[in-house]
Amino acid sequence: MMNLYDLAKQLFDAQPFSRFLGAELTRADADGVTLSLPIVDHHKQQHGYVHGGVISYLADNALTFAGGLALEGDAVTSEFKLNYLKPAKGSRLEARAEAKGVGRRQAVCRCEIYAIEGAEATLCALAQGTIVALVK
Amino acid sequence: MMNLYDLAKQLFDAQPFSRFLGAELTRADADGVTLSLPIVDHHKQQHGYVHGGVISYLADNALTFAGGLALEGDAVTSEFKLNYLKPAKGSRLEARAEAKGVGRRQAVCRCEIYAIEGAEATLCALAQGTIVALVK
Amino acid sequence: MMNLYDLAKQLFDAQPFSRFLGAELTRADADGVTLSLPIVDHHKQQHGYVHGGVISYLADNALTFAGGLALEGDAVTSEFKLNYLKPAKGSRLEARAEAKGVGRRQAVCRCEIYAIEGAEATLCALAQGTIVALVK
Amino acid sequence: MMNLYDLAKQLFDAQPFSRFLGAELTRADADGVTLSLPIVDHHKQQHGYVHGGVISYLADNALTFAGGLALEGDAVTSEFKLNYLKPAKGSRLEARAEAKGVGRRQAVCRCEIYAIEGAEATLCALAQGTIVALVK
Repeated sequence: MMNLYDLAKQLFDAQPFSRFLGAELTRADADGVTLSLPIVDHHKQQHGYVHGGVISYLADNALTFAGGLALEGDAVTSEFKLNYLKPAKGSRLEARAEAKGVGRRQAVCRCEIYAIEGAEATLCALAQGTIVALVK
Repeated sequence: MMNLYDLAKQLFDAQPFSRFLGAELTRADADGVTLSLPIVDHHKQQHGYVHGGVISYLADNALTFAGGLALEGDAVTSEFKLNYLKPAKGSRLEARAEAKGVGRRQAVCRCEIYAIEGAEATLCALAQGTIVALVK
Repeated sequence: MMNLYDLAKQLFDAQPFSRFLGAELTRADADGVTLSLPIVDHHKQQHGYVHGGVISYLADNALTFAGGLALEGDAVTSEFKLNYLKPAKGSRLEARAEAKGVGRRQAVCRCEIYAIEGAEATLCALAQGTIVALVK
Repeated sequence: MMNLYDLAKQLFDAQPFSRFLGAELTRADADGVTLSLPIVDHHKQQHGYVHGGVISYLADNALTFAGGLALEGDAVTSEFKLNYLKPAKGSRLEARAEAKGVGRRQAVCRCEIYAIEGAEATLCALAQGTIVALVK
């Protein structure tokens, strides 16, 4: 029987856009999920930092998977909110998300996005959103 | 002298991530901006619809440029919120954003994202956020 | 048979907190709702402007009623986001909300909050949120 | 010399709306703030639960004071987002907020709102927002 982590990883790897960006689901457990994205030049905006849209993709997707795990099935982000704290630069981004309030059909989740350079992780964005279970 | 539209277009075209996705700034005037993105397969999620992260990129960027025009200079999105209304499919996405409240240093903007198929435009997401002028 | 406006007004007037603040539902029709609140001293914060919490109450409640009308039944706000544009002062506040995306069980609504002084209405806040139908 | 906690308490107690509702600032330290509000009947909506507007007031204000402490001065909430998790009932509400990202002029803060009944605290709402320092 496939466990939830394997199911999450399988769903994640079936997302063409995640593959196009190079993102990876590196953790999925009872505490939530972690997504990781190596930063390359085509992720950037005009000032050389990671484009906000890359960060919002990562936040949206980390929230979705944290919610899906909590709801124990396929799910979509219904809405979310994102605050940018610092310009993001480094070798990769990491988004860590967890469900904070879980109902029968929806989960409210939070996410922190870090920019990683060597051993240093800089918190660069915070997100919060609602994930809704897909009706089977 | 370069007008604001040309400046906006120049800044937009200097964004590696926007080029990577294939987005275009198609309108920038006193009423706001329009971004357009032809939908291709690598923009999709596992169910064949446009990935939420593509929509959040488009919302974030349309808000930024609507705010930058209103603030008359380079600007960044400080925060935004996005509600997904419908799964997005069609030949392209269009994000229309305008500034609703403009101060000296920041503008609060709203954005509607449509999925376009032929003559039909379906509203598929709504966003609202704060854009902050970069101090020169 | 009671029409939707009368039902909305009845539900509104059954809210002890709305009566405590002095708010009134002054419009409810196919285009949305308007709530009105005469500004009195106990609505203020330490600088003499209307407290943000009064504005957030008005936004939350206007969103709820706009969503409930669109969903044709009793409903609650699931989440919302609020941007303050200007300090609010004047003789009364007016919140105008409308549903922008309506599904079977939820409606995404937007709201503008104005401070009214004589003939002048100043836009002082913008909100956007999700309203969910109560299952009967 | 007045310490930050005393300054925060003084500002809080100078808010007519907070006194009108009966709210109290019960903690203000390096980790953030706690606001407490005894629940009385006029805080409720038509179903007997605490009105969402009371919760949004508490969230807004807790965020403001957490941000103000982090920014070391008087501050206002620029924007926030609130997710309701559960209907709130009990003897009192408690909002706990902390700054997560602090810049020179603004702080991004998070808040949890609990409904307290006896020894039990139920998480009923989550908020996130931007607090901006008032220029002196």
